[in-house]
Amino acid sequence: MDGEGEARITRAAFDRLCAEELPFTVSFGFRLDAIGGGWARCRAPFRPESIRPGGTIAGPILMGLADFALYAAVLSRIGAVPLAVTTSLTTNFLRRPRPADVLAEARLLKLGRRLAYGEVTLLSEGEAEPVAHVTGTYSIPPSATAQ
Amino acid sequence: MDGEGEARITRAAFDRLCAEELPFTVSFGFRLDAIGGGWARCRAPFRPESIRPGGTIAGPILMGLADFALYAAVLSRIGAVPLAVTTSLTTNFLRRPRPADVLAEARLLKLGRRLAYGEVTLLSEGEAEPVAHVTGTYSIPPSATAQ
Amino acid sequence: MDGEGEARITRAAFDRLCAEELPFTVSFGFRLDAIGGGWARCRAPFRPESIRPGGTIAGPILMGLADFALYAAVLSRIGAVPLAVTTSLTTNFLRRPRPADVLAEARLLKLGRRLAYGEVTLLSEGEAEPVAHVTGTYSIPPSATAQ
Amino acid sequence: MDGEGEARITRAAFDRLCAEELPFTVSFGFRLDAIGGGWARCRAPFRPESIRPGGTIAGPILMGLADFALYAAVLSRIGAVPLAVTTSLTTNFLRRPRPADVLAEARLLKLGRRLAYGEVTLLSEGEAEPVAHVTGTYSIPPSATAQ
Repeated sequence: MDGEGEARITRAAFDRLCAEELPFTVSFGFRLDAIGGGWARCRAPFRPESIRPGGTIAGPILMGLADFALYAAVLSRIGAVPLAVTTSLTTNFLRRPRPADVLAEARLLKLGRRLAYGEVTLLSEGEAEPVAHVTGTYSIPPSATAQ
Repeated sequence: MDGEGEARITRAAFDRLCAEELPFTVSFGFRLDAIGGGWARCRAPFRPESIRPGGTIAGPILMGLADFALYAAVLSRIGAVPLAVTTSLTTNFLRRPRPADVLAEARLLKLGRRLAYGEVTLLSEGEAEPVAHVTGTYSIPPSATAQ
Repeated sequence: MDGEGEARITRAAFDRLCAEELPFTVSFGFRLDAIGGGWARCRAPFRPESIRPGGTIAGPILMGLADFALYAAVLSRIGAVPLAVTTSLTTNFLRRPRPADVLAEARLLKLGRRLAYGEVTLLSEGEAEPVAHVTGTYSIPPSATAQ
Repeated sequence: MDGEGEARITRAAFDRLCAEELPFTVSFGFRLDAIGGGWARCRAPFRPESIRPGGTIAGPILMGLADFALYAAVLSRIGAVPLAVTTSLTTNFLRRPRPADVLAEARLLKLGRRLAYGEVTLLSEGEAEPVAHVTGTYSIPPSATAQ
């Protein structure tokens, strides 16, 4: 499902939607770096206050970033639908993040009429091995999809 | 496993550990209300900046609170072991939280030598139906448990 | 949500539905022991061929039984709707089952218009500690619920 | 982690291990088609008795096959260690399987000293879109890994 065609929402429209609907994503500094049909790449800039002692990033930041990236991947298929809501999010923490930006690569595995499902890989910038792997489901409001 | 006996960590010791090791929980205002052998009740005080438009609480706050409450339930059995780390957290979002304090009730379902597993129910204060249900696994450092 | 009122499906009607729609549950010997509004208790009779070496029960039997019990709990609220389908199932294996019947206690935590969510505790008959804990989501066909 | 180097277990050794330790996988007809360092491809041959009315494959078959494929991927890294056990398995059902062989493609995302984590994509043979996506964790017995 991923990598096919163009996103149905621009980065500017996504930024506007987040500023209006998801102010905590702005306060965490989450950013959309790139988006296409069925996928999105996002970033949590490194902030000293996000880290746990030992230099690692707090879990809620990682989970919030994954949710944000999956939301972008969903909107890349259905357009600017603010009422798509997360119904479940499963996070597996794999390695300690370094004190660096965290990158999230989200891709949809299914877009149905009522549910979207996808996965997100989280990485510390500059590292190859993932720090976390996340899967999640979004509920799509009626009439938001044609499929 | 829950409800049996006394906690192996006091509320004061838990608060100190969080202040030192998990500063983001302090910055979110998370509090431990009560703790016993295998369970914990925690609270995220209502803050206007936590809410999403429509008056609901942001997902990362809910997931972070659940993780915090499960951590307290784990430490209620193994004592003040800072190196217990979350390996997975699965959150199911069930209802929109009201603009009120969020309460978390965590209980352990298993404490093994290497892994602890438990569940957390999240509620808006004053409501009966849960806003989210969370399950999670903690990795226990070697020699932290006798079991 | 659980424990309120009567089931909207009888044990006999549930057995008939399974015989017609879910023949593998019959071939595994799964049985509904009791059902009420929002909950169900089910059983997988012990069969030597289900066990793994060492005397434990195979994982697919445990997961299948949990799914079966959750299905019964869903139908206890919406009646005999064969098109309710599992969308996700998360199983945490906690202890080795003994060579005995496996009991499943399922209860709904949410019944929405489109999704039902619940949890299942699996036990070896005669033991107090759970062998597995399962959470799952069912998709409800349109117009099957009034809520 | 996947695709690097050779498997530390041969197909013949894996088949022997399953015949001895996991007889239900033999009775379900599960087969290992290919294996390499950190990945495995497996198959559940189509059997009329596995299907649900409507022609789809029963959920326990899908979950059991995913568990089997992930087990092979774990052993591809640690060799023939029979005591590696599943600690959790999360299955998301995405589309109805067709009445055909089900293929499972498993890859490890992390191999630690105590836990291995990976994902499995399930497909109906001849179809491009997945029928299910599974993530799971295995507990590795002490001294089975050098990492």
